[in-house]
Amino acid sequence: MTNGITLLDALTQALGADAILHSEADLAGYTEDWRGRYKSPALCVALPGDTQQVSEIVRLCHAHGTPVLPQGGNTSLCGGAVPADAGRPPVIVNLSRMRRIRRVDAANNSMEVEAGCVLASVQEAAAAEGRLYPISLGAEGSCQIGGTIATNAGGTGVLRYGNTRDNVLGLEVVLPDGTVWNGLTALRKNNTGYDLKHLFIGAEGTMGIVTAAVLKLHPLPTAHAVAWLAPESPQAALDILGLFQRACGSRLSAFEMIDSNQLDVVMTHVPGRKNPLAGAHPWHVLVELSDTGGDAELQDLLQEILEQASGLGLLHDAAVASNGAQRAALWEVRHSVSEGNKKAGVGLTTDTAVPVSAVPRFIDEATQAVRGLVPGLPVLIVAHLGDGNVHFIPFFTFDAWNALRDRDATAAAIRRAVNDVAAALGGTFSAEHGVGRSSLAEMEHYKSPVELAMMRAVKQAFDPAHLFNPGRLLP
Amino acid sequence: MTNGITLLDALTQALGADAILHSEADLAGYTEDWRGRYKSPALCVALPGDTQQVSEIVRLCHAHGTPVLPQGGNTSLCGGAVPADAGRPPVIVNLSRMRRIRRVDAANNSMEVEAGCVLASVQEAAAAEGRLYPISLGAEGSCQIGGTIATNAGGTGVLRYGNTRDNVLGLEVVLPDGTVWNGLTALRKNNTGYDLKHLFIGAEGTMGIVTAAVLKLHPLPTAHAVAWLAPESPQAALDILGLFQRACGSRLSAFEMIDSNQLDVVMTHVPGRKNPLAGAHPWHVLVELSDTGGDAELQDLLQEILEQASGLGLLHDAAVASNGAQRAALWEVRHSVSEGNKKAGVGLTTDTAVPVSAVPRFIDEATQAVRGLVPGLPVLIVAHLGDGNVHFIPFFTFDAWNALRDRDATAAAIRRAVNDVAAALGGTFSAEHGVGRSSLAEMEHYKSPVELAMMRAVKQAFDPAHLFNPGRLLP
Repeated sequence: MTNGITLLDALTQALGADAILHSEADLAGYTEDWRGRYKSPALCVALPGDTQQVSEIVRLCHAHGTPVLPQGGNTSLCGGAVPADAGRPPVIVNLSRMRRIRRVDAANNSMEVEAGCVLASVQEAAAAEGRLYPISLGAEGSCQIGGTIATNAGGTGVLRYGNTRDNVLGLEVVLPDGTVWNGLTALRKNNTGYDLKHLFIGAEGTMGIVTAAVLKLHPLPTAHAVAWLAPESPQAALDILGLFQRACGSRLSAFEMIDSNQLDVVMTHVPGRKNPLAGAHPWHVLVELSDTGGDAELQDLLQEILEQASGLGLLHDAAVASNGAQRAALWEVRHSVSEGNKKAGVGLTTDTAVPVSAVPRFIDEATQAVRGLVPGLPVLIVAHLGDGNVHFIPFFTFDAWNALRDRDATAAAIRRAVNDVAAALGGTFSAEHGVGRSSLAEMEHYKSPVELAMMRAVKQAFDPAHLFNPGRLLP
Repeated sequence: MTNGITLLDALTQALGADAILHSEADLAGYTEDWRGRYKSPALCVALPGDTQQVSEIVRLCHAHGTPVLPQGGNTSLCGGAVPADAGRPPVIVNLSRMRRIRRVDAANNSMEVEAGCVLASVQEAAAAEGRLYPISLGAEGSCQIGGTIATNAGGTGVLRYGNTRDNVLGLEVVLPDGTVWNGLTALRKNNTGYDLKHLFIGAEGTMGIVTAAVLKLHPLPTAHAVAWLAPESPQAALDILGLFQRACGSRLSAFEMIDSNQLDVVMTHVPGRKNPLAGAHPWHVLVELSDTGGDAELQDLLQEILEQASGLGLLHDAAVASNGAQRAALWEVRHSVSEGNKKAGVGLTTDTAVPVSAVPRFIDEATQAVRGLVPGLPVLIVAHLGDGNVHFIPFFTFDAWNALRDRDATAAAIRRAVNDVAAALGGTFSAEHGVGRSSLAEMEHYKSPVELAMMRAVKQAFDPAHLFNPGRLLP
């Protein structure tokens, strides 16, 4: 099969020298994750220009028994997009050159795009046709559609529009043996056998390389209303969420909760951020409605529900944005969380989700569990409350962190304690970030043997040589 | 393994005599489909009362090498719920006795139910908590949740809420070797490996037996508005659909199109049905908006869009229902289609879907293709236009049908011609009915070899002995 020629030479012959990077300098941006936590060697980086080239690369790697690492914008939060630290160095197949918007079908509310399209450019192409592609997240200026599909990316639009999985109609995938599967259907209904696309969405590149996708589009909202609320408690926040859902249905597009510790960190460490409310309150919610039609109606609806909530004693205070600039200012407070936390100290970020109804109990019990390990340790809460997704962040000042004897062991014990509480409430240790490299131990610990065996059976059926993204996702 | 004891005896020992039916009289309602088109023998019918019993049945069948046929309400339109006509007679595992609503979690907008729950009872349990379970279809009074999951049932709520697949959060499944997979998560976000539930949704019982599910609930709409429209043409209907989507977003809950032939059949053959509009028009659309809030606002919005459509010359005429009784009367016309067609003659029903934008071209080209085979043959059109799902029905009077020389061959040739047009436009031969027994030849003909190989790999990984629902879904 390999005729004595090296894989590097074969790839260079097949794609041309400019599409294969292999000097150490050229590899640097591809073999290390953006936060600088993981770095491992690769054989080379291949930059295919089309699906056929991806297929050729995969066939050559298969023939040489060399691992393959699909890579998009390299924005993973869990080391999912850089090489593993064991085994043969892989060929990184970076999709950046495949960035054509192949087609926008406005009447069908769909668009076909190549995997290397940056998320923001997909949003723009949809908006140009009066449509919304609703996946939106911090990395949208650099992450690629293929990566968002491989990780089933979440973000701030999930409450109303679902995860990436819910916004993909069809896929084109190069399978682990190099075969191209053309599953680029744009249909809303198709009951002809197993829905194969779901095998690849969220598979973190372990089942093949997504090369293109048909995405679902939505009407572009034209009206927005945003308010900042101070609910009595997490339970009161949930009750208010219920009022909004009953009265607004799918107009409710965000319901984000933070606690006063988190707000204080933002106020103290991010210049220009102001407390949206006068006075101190223990809990804070940013609520957003969006709709077709005009702002005024939506604003009235928002006011009405807030009055209801006040009347029920659920609310300490609230501030409603009265124009676009005020709406943006409220969102800015919420979006400053990461920046503030980075400056303030060391946060042991978790990515738990529990049933929405269980969030108050989760916060109570996880706080107790953490305090049992480190008495008095502050916790920051950042929750996509409408999705039950709580970033529960035990937080150390730099001094406290540096004074710890065994930081790794302390961090691991704290995270395990938090994830244990989530698991006991029917929750998960990874709501939106994925497993990647950093949560393999959690997969082993929390997943049932039945479920792991099912996943391994799927993997074995499609990648029996275990060449795709080894050391990731499946322990 | 089997110790010489017959499977029937072993099942009777395990479940008790009252849970195993095997006399011919007892089997009658289980071995024949409700339309009387398919009937084949079964070894027996097992009526498990809980998941553990399902597991025992499957283990025993596995040990005896006997096929297993999961069965719900037996309402399949394509022979999917009765035994195949070849191979060993299966044990039918009928889930009717497993009909507990295990839990409704209103704050999480979810409910956990057993597979044998009748769809209507699930809708009622959700409504009792002020929530909507949005899957709604003709058979809802007798079909079971397990069957709707196995077939990814569609129906009239798809435009707004998606198919069954989109409304399932978690599953409990007895796998082909009898292992129970507890995947009953109620989470909105969970990125921890392959999303295994999608392997079973729409798998038509070939991958195991769904025994319970966690379903997604929605706010219960409180406002409704319905109108009957006469658009210029299918393209005009699409343009009007676009106006509604832009102006109403997800308030648009139905957009159903029929042609004048279909309306005439209903008028002529179903007593009490009246043409909603004065005068004759070639095309008809029923549009429904629904929302939280009150009827009046929604009615105004509907009127506004109709005026817009009129101004653009897209609309011949329109009638807006002004109260609940009038809304029901308009829906009654639409729901009388099956009854009318059954009385009027022989319709060769198809279940095609194409991208929404391609519907006008599909109707034109499919009509030409059919007329090329049978000059002048009338066609009835019943389309879930918002989903691109067209039931394109070449129609014979009873006399014309009886005068045909080879009815089977004519029907097959006509269906193939219609499905060919759909396929050429990126469409499918089964949008919502599934494959079952009746569309195996279409699977073989239209699916790519790559896709069939992928499906067979999945099947092989989970059911290597090929005992689950053999002769169905996969050719």
